Amino acid sequence: MSTNFIHDNFLLENKYAEELYHNFSKNQPIIDYHNHLSPALIADNHVFSNITEAWINGDHYKWRAMRTLGVNEKFITGDASAQEKFLQWGKTVPYTVRNPLFHWTHLELARYFDIYELLNEDSASKIYNEVSAKISTPEYSTQNLLAKMNVEMVCTTEDPTDNLEHHQKLASGNGKLKMSTAFRPDKAILIGNEGFNDYLNTLAEVAGVEIATYADLITVLTKRLSYFHENGCRLSDHGLDQIYSVSFTESEVSNIFKKRRKGAQVTDEEALKFQSAILIFLAESYHEMGWVQQFHLGALRNNNARMHRILGPDTGWDSIGDLPQAQQLSDFLNRLDSSDKLAKTIIYNLNPADNEVFATMIGNFNDGSVKGKVQLGSGWWFLDQKDGMTKQINALSNMGLLSCFVGMLTDSRSFLSFPRHEYFRRVLCNLLGDEMKRGELPDDMEWIGKIVSDISYNNAKEYFNF
Amino acid sequence: MSTNFIHDNFLLENKYAEELYHNFSKNQPIIDYHNHLSPALIADNHVFSNITEAWINGDHYKWRAMRTLGVNEKFITGDASAQEKFLQWGKTVPYTVRNPLFHWTHLELARYFDIYELLNEDSASKIYNEVSAKISTPEYSTQNLLAKMNVEMVCTTEDPTDNLEHHQKLASGNGKLKMSTAFRPDKAILIGNEGFNDYLNTLAEVAGVEIATYADLITVLTKRLSYFHENGCRLSDHGLDQIYSVSFTESEVSNIFKKRRKGAQVTDEEALKFQSAILIFLAESYHEMGWVQQFHLGALRNNNARMHRILGPDTGWDSIGDLPQAQQLSDFLNRLDSSDKLAKTIIYNLNPADNEVFATMIGNFNDGSVKGKVQLGSGWWFLDQKDGMTKQINALSNMGLLSCFVGMLTDSRSFLSFPRHEYFRRVLCNLLGDEMKRGELPDDMEWIGKIVSDISYNNAKEYFNF
Amino acid sequence: MSTNFIHDNFLLENKYAEELYHNFSKNQPIIDYHNHLSPALIADNHVFSNITEAWINGDHYKWRAMRTLGVNEKFITGDASAQEKFLQWGKTVPYTVRNPLFHWTHLELARYFDIYELLNEDSASKIYNEVSAKISTPEYSTQNLLAKMNVEMVCTTEDPTDNLEHHQKLASGNGKLKMSTAFRPDKAILIGNEGFNDYLNTLAEVAGVEIATYADLITVLTKRLSYFHENGCRLSDHGLDQIYSVSFTESEVSNIFKKRRKGAQVTDEEALKFQSAILIFLAESYHEMGWVQQFHLGALRNNNARMHRILGPDTGWDSIGDLPQAQQLSDFLNRLDSSDKLAKTIIYNLNPADNEVFATMIGNFNDGSVKGKVQLGSGWWFLDQKDGMTKQINALSNMGLLSCFVGMLTDSRSFLSFPRHEYFRRVLCNLLGDEMKRGELPDDMEWIGKIVSDISYNNAKEYFNF
Repeated sequence: MSTNFIHDNFLLENKYAEELYHNFSKNQPIIDYHNHLSPALIADNHVFSNITEAWINGDHYKWRAMRTLGVNEKFITGDASAQEKFLQWGKTVPYTVRNPLFHWTHLELARYFDIYELLNEDSASKIYNEVSAKISTPEYSTQNLLAKMNVEMVCTTEDPTDNLEHHQKLASGNGKLKMSTAFRPDKAILIGNEGFNDYLNTLAEVAGVEIATYADLITVLTKRLSYFHENGCRLSDHGLDQIYSVSFTESEVSNIFKKRRKGAQVTDEEALKFQSAILIFLAESYHEMGWVQQFHLGALRNNNARMHRILGPDTGWDSIGDLPQAQQLSDFLNRLDSSDKLAKTIIYNLNPADNEVFATMIGNFNDGSVKGKVQLGSGWWFLDQKDGMTKQINALSNMGLLSCFVGMLTDSRSFLSFPRHEYFRRVLCNLLGDEMKRGELPDDMEWIGKIVSDISYNNAKEYFNF
Repeated sequence: MSTNFIHDNFLLENKYAEELYHNFSKNQPIIDYHNHLSPALIADNHVFSNITEAWINGDHYKWRAMRTLGVNEKFITGDASAQEKFLQWGKTVPYTVRNPLFHWTHLELARYFDIYELLNEDSASKIYNEVSAKISTPEYSTQNLLAKMNVEMVCTTEDPTDNLEHHQKLASGNGKLKMSTAFRPDKAILIGNEGFNDYLNTLAEVAGVEIATYADLITVLTKRLSYFHENGCRLSDHGLDQIYSVSFTESEVSNIFKKRRKGAQVTDEEALKFQSAILIFLAESYHEMGWVQQFHLGALRNNNARMHRILGPDTGWDSIGDLPQAQQLSDFLNRLDSSDKLAKTIIYNLNPADNEVFATMIGNFNDGSVKGKVQLGSGWWFLDQKDGMTKQINALSNMGLLSCFVGMLTDSRSFLSFPRHEYFRRVLCNLLGDEMKRGELPDDMEWIGKIVSDISYNNAKEYFNF
Repeated sequence: MSTNFIHDNFLLENKYAEELYHNFSKNQPIIDYHNHLSPALIADNHVFSNITEAWINGDHYKWRAMRTLGVNEKFITGDASAQEKFLQWGKTVPYTVRNPLFHWTHLELARYFDIYELLNEDSASKIYNEVSAKISTPEYSTQNLLAKMNVEMVCTTEDPTDNLEHHQKLASGNGKLKMSTAFRPDKAILIGNEGFNDYLNTLAEVAGVEIATYADLITVLTKRLSYFHENGCRLSDHGLDQIYSVSFTESEVSNIFKKRRKGAQVTDEEALKFQSAILIFLAESYHEMGWVQQFHLGALRNNNARMHRILGPDTGWDSIGDLPQAQQLSDFLNRLDSSDKLAKTIIYNLNPADNEVFATMIGNFNDGSVKGKVQLGSGWWFLDQKDGMTKQINALSNMGLLSCFVGMLTDSRSFLSFPRHEYFRRVLCNLLGDEMKRGELPDDMEWIGKIVSDISYNNAKEYFNF
């Protein structure tokens, strides 16, 4: 065939879809309102030494695929050379057909490096050389990589202990890129974690305040929230298996905290009470400061203890959980709403079987005060692929208003993941274009185009006040 | 385009689908075997003052959409004028694309009022005037609205305290429309409800029997069941988060009831025992009287306490739950079946993730005694849309016999919802037509047409003995 | 139409799909690595008396359909004649449209008996005579039926008490067909079963060792594992509602076992501890012997006590459960992995809502040591149909590597079920062909064809070392 695998109308299956994408979406800037990019690499405008550093190191999606195929860990996180690792990845790619990695890989090669050849065992060596040559030049610095993708703003994710120096550094410069941060206090919440007390010690040191009691913890977190706010932070983020919302008293929570602070373990019930308390405190604080709060729910993390011990968290040993989600989430949102302390909220769901639970839950707290106040977040992590996106878009459409959706984000650690916005936009335009063709949507390009533009950019712009 | 959005072949994507719908389904009468219409408005052959009264007031589907878009409650349930409310709704409609409201809205405007223009901010005022002018005339009385849609029979839903006067009134007249009722005793079951004792007092008064003990409650319910039966009732209905079926003794249940009757709260475990007992009693009664029992399972209701306080139940603050469903449902049906007291049963499921659990559960109690004895109910509430219907039809097809399905019902409070039968029939015909075209079904129009006719009308006619 | 319902390109909707199927899949032999065929009937090369014996007796899929349609049990498992039963089945078939039975039925008539006419009330008598005449001849003996379908190997499923005489008999002959067995010790695990102690007595007798203590049970199971291994067994299988993995001590387990062995019932918590212990012991043994372990999870069995009493298990009264699956499965696999005792594992999931939980779980334990070490099993039982297969394939593709999948198995009791491999292959080829046409897969017939061949045959061949 003379057509490249990645071509202008990739994923766009009719004229409506093509027109929607090319005229209403393609040229919109990107607001990447949640990701895990390194602010240091951005502020320093880092130039990568080779493609493996930028593309394979740190990418647990690729690692899981390679491990499943039987590739030895040496070539994944081990001491093999950058080139050896790339060649193993190249060999793996053809085996990833139907996995999002196959599309992502070729979209990224095309968009950043103008490479349209398929990556496989035969082409890997040539592509490694060509791409490494490019990426090691200043034209491919982190800021330039983002600019190439028309990224207007990125919002990274930081722990309360972070001093935000890189955000300050970038803000003090005169580049076009805007970078904000999201406050992510998971380590202050998960009282059962092994490292909980060590973490609190660090947090106390950063804040310059001892943390002996629950009240101290609240004081310290309040200080850190203020610090983040002063540094421009307007979002928070939480990564939890489920929302915690059981009843508790202040004295119960104080005692539980004291017990844990002395080094004892707490029971599941105690943990739940503490976690419910701290979560409400935080959510009320976010509301008070006018932030948007985000909840990433449903992951079952660190399943493989052996590999977790060797490689640490976020290295590819996580999966989708099946805890109940509805009741505690309802209680939590209701508790905040009842005292008029419910901030704008985005809820990301990892188990597609729960899409409809979440898509209907958000409607319980959309009360006309803010357009799309409570949002169902875009397909996340394992669901960040065509099927997952489609299911999220369909659930939201059927049970809420797609037109109010704030759309896509990368949630990525990689500077080369931004074509995922393009991927999402193509999927969205193809869904809508398909229904226009079939007569399920009106043949009104201007209106459907407006909705596409809104979801691609305008809704996020308005919602986050970026 | 010269074609209207709603046209003869709306949702029908090939010649097979068209032929199935136009020749085998379109002209079948409607048996709406479960809804929440007001029997008073039917018996009185009410004429609405304007379209807002008939179409927006009381419609929490529309309300949720408007609230999500940021419309102020004043224009939803507040004191804005009928016209103001309609204009806000008109402005909202274009933002509901891909939500069933968008299709329903235009199908209803077309079928009742011959309006094919799309409703939006520009057209809202004109449409308001045109439709209000029509609907306020006797030609659009409640009975005429039903007749326009070829409705042969409606079955409303009443509390055991209802005196059924409106049903009696309609029955004593000589109109063509048949109206029955379904006995819905949720308030006598949910012992944990705040208003439980007040409700029992009313029930006692209606029955003319004191309710001091559990035995009294059984006596009273038996009287009301007889009263309903004498008034032609042949169905019951229950709206529960899940089926309750734990083991209990009569003395336990008596004590629990006595405790609650004295004003004390009961524990979750106690509530479960009481609810299990009363549910079995009722189900056995239904069987004895030859009724059909219906269970609407899976809703999580009244999530927003603040708005529930202001507006009451059924005003748009409900969502989909994720409680386990299989085990207690199995125990409940088995207990009834074991003593040969299992009535014909329809189970409606609100969480699409559970479709397959329910679709296989019904097969456990279809024992050859009655065709399609235990039914998987049609896509319900949030699932009453193309995707939801399709998933229900597919689960039923793959795991049971679609051919025995009793089909669609509106479950609606609105006299303008009956085109949902048409919508369902089009979806059904399109699914079957698509598979005929693709060769997954035989090219036998007569047979597939017969199945379509059966699901549209004949199966319900036979199953309910209407 | 001149085309038969079952034709060369049944389910294949474009040229890519056709080419994939006809050139890369159709002619591959069948490795049926898990089924419930009778080894006696195979070893004896049994010839059936009539089609009812081979096709309806024992087939609870057909039974459930007939019961749902209202067919009397007399014609299902009762004393009606073989011909009467077949005629009732023939009458039922047209009502099974959209159920897999409709496709299976006609595929089986075509592939084994060259009958392309549709089975229905009119054709039933003729087809009965024609097919019974054929099947009662040696040309249609069990081994010949398998040979007709190009079956290279079958793996049946036996209880630890089995003496494997039929496997030995077949192995000692010189036929081409290979038959292995899978060790299925459910009855030794489910301590709460009524017949648990009787079963242990039988097991003790077979092993020639008393079973008084838990240690005895381990001794006996170890003996039976060795016996199975010596007889060529390399697989195990478990049919459980969920994986059991709670913490326990050896002394707890010993006491629980002793208590039960004395005839007392154990609590749910005790059962869970025992089941967790024995499961870990077995899984470690499988690893030590180099076996593949299989887990069929998610069924809710024997829901209808009345019919279970009359007909026994596996007669059509089972359905899909909704127990939580993730946490205990994770703990179980992790425990094995942590001590490097995790065998190759295939996990079959019965609730499609859990597909993504399982599809991501397997990735947590694929560590590069073996290609596709932990597998998501093919769509099983109620999910063994086009939709179910498609969902399994899509979940696996999106969240793992489809390319490493060991593919289809019948899991069937019937010698006439082997066209299900063809069915699966057609579904697979059509999915891939469709994406090639739409440009979501590269237009590389050689590569996609290789993947199809691997899933059809090569992956299983390599994985099982058959």
